[in-house]
Amino acid sequence: MTKKELFKEIKAKQSFLCVGLDTDIKKIPSHLLKEKDPVFEFNKQIIDATEKFAVSYKPNIAFYEAMGPKGWESLQKTLKYIPTNCFSIADAKRGDIGNTSSLYARAFFDKEASGMSFDSITVAPYMGIDSVKPFLEFDGKWVILLALTSNEGSSDFQQLKISSGEKLYEQVLKTSSQWADSERLMYVVGATKASLLKEIREIIPHHFLLVPGVGAQGGSLEDVAKNGMNTECGLLVNSSRGIIYASNGEDFSKVAAHEAKKLQIQMEDLLNQYL
Amino acid sequence: MTKKELFKEIKAKQSFLCVGLDTDIKKIPSHLLKEKDPVFEFNKQIIDATEKFAVSYKPNIAFYEAMGPKGWESLQKTLKYIPTNCFSIADAKRGDIGNTSSLYARAFFDKEASGMSFDSITVAPYMGIDSVKPFLEFDGKWVILLALTSNEGSSDFQQLKISSGEKLYEQVLKTSSQWADSERLMYVVGATKASLLKEIREIIPHHFLLVPGVGAQGGSLEDVAKNGMNTECGLLVNSSRGIIYASNGEDFSKVAAHEAKKLQIQMEDLLNQYL
Repeated sequence: MTKKELFKEIKAKQSFLCVGLDTDIKKIPSHLLKEKDPVFEFNKQIIDATEKFAVSYKPNIAFYEAMGPKGWESLQKTLKYIPTNCFSIADAKRGDIGNTSSLYARAFFDKEASGMSFDSITVAPYMGIDSVKPFLEFDGKWVILLALTSNEGSSDFQQLKISSGEKLYEQVLKTSSQWADSERLMYVVGATKASLLKEIREIIPHHFLLVPGVGAQGGSLEDVAKNGMNTECGLLVNSSRGIIYASNGEDFSKVAAHEAKKLQIQMEDLLNQYL
Repeated sequence: MTKKELFKEIKAKQSFLCVGLDTDIKKIPSHLLKEKDPVFEFNKQIIDATEKFAVSYKPNIAFYEAMGPKGWESLQKTLKYIPTNCFSIADAKRGDIGNTSSLYARAFFDKEASGMSFDSITVAPYMGIDSVKPFLEFDGKWVILLALTSNEGSSDFQQLKISSGEKLYEQVLKTSSQWADSERLMYVVGATKASLLKEIREIIPHHFLLVPGVGAQGGSLEDVAKNGMNTECGLLVNSSRGIIYASNGEDFSKVAAHEAKKLQIQMEDLLNQYL
């Protein structure tokens, strides 16, 4: 999916919502456990219920990996079920030396090899340029690089001051934005750091930002839009637990739809206000 | 496996060799492709041929992931086949917010959930303390944290000077060595940076180092031992391609054994010299 196509979907649905599929077999409603593939069945019903309100789905790979080979089967089926007009994100936080990153790219982008071809993958920057480049060699696929994450530990290293006077995540933005333009590269910037979005936008005015941390982690959607929106929206705001685990009864998908719709309505307002 | 047990194995085998199982279905000898599970068959023969000379095996998770669910089955079988007196490393470079890292820990340490329980996992530090802690909650398991990697891109961020005058990887060592002691935490330090090992040893005298980059990537084993060995050896030196792909004919395992033995003999000399 191109940036232009993504923006078109955002305008059509009046939403920049990404639904995070952090599907934990230990947390899904118990009535689903009798299904042949409970994790896929859960995702299917969540997607059916929320696709009117969301432009993107983000399976969190850890949750599938934790189940061994059958988790990867659930993941494959889930990806196949995500509507093609939705931007799919493998939230994998991968990154290794070039020779190994090529194989991770094969895992998430090469359908013939692994059975899956996501639109994008999240990548960790610590190992530098050759850990990122192999993902960009796949035509039309996106890298979403970690810049400033939403968790407490982001202060350990990401916010360290470097000798130029900047913080590490700012250097990560500056250096990596030379590796690919905003048609192939996005960044993870946590909503819990929304006050910093203004400065971040000065460094990377055109790149899309994937923003986790709204909801369960306490970030404000209003602040994210006010400080982070650009002329092509430039935002995908993720909610995982706040939508998919809003109820764990038989009504889970209905309640998930309700929560997704609430966010979509707020997003429509914010698009009218800031776009 | 405890640090004491690992050191005992090192002394018994007079070796600190880790064999990297970067097993690519596209690179293994063609006569194996007729096997039901060629990747596992390859690993099995490599392990049989090299276990006398190696104290550790390190499957590189990317290579299994690239094959989808059947790759994870090959990985499970491989782990089961690694002798229990060898230290097993899931080279996965994972790391995410706490809630997600817990699931990655489940994937690699919780046999009941995923079918696998490695001795250790490699973890990326960028997301800080809460991305690492969940792995340490599994009793007796090890985190091997990326500090200074062997690739070109390590200069992009790892070697940046921070405002205290140190380099980022030095700060990573200092901060993270507060999170766990040398009984639970190791570090990745690339052999291509062997000249820096002396300074690294001043920061972390007691931690084991996993050292990739000898062989295909050009690092020197002699320099690594000279600068990095401590009183409990403190080194696991990895070779992947230099051993497993030394021949791609029917004699691949014999040639792999020969290459592993060559390294073991050098290691025996170095243990006599520097231990």
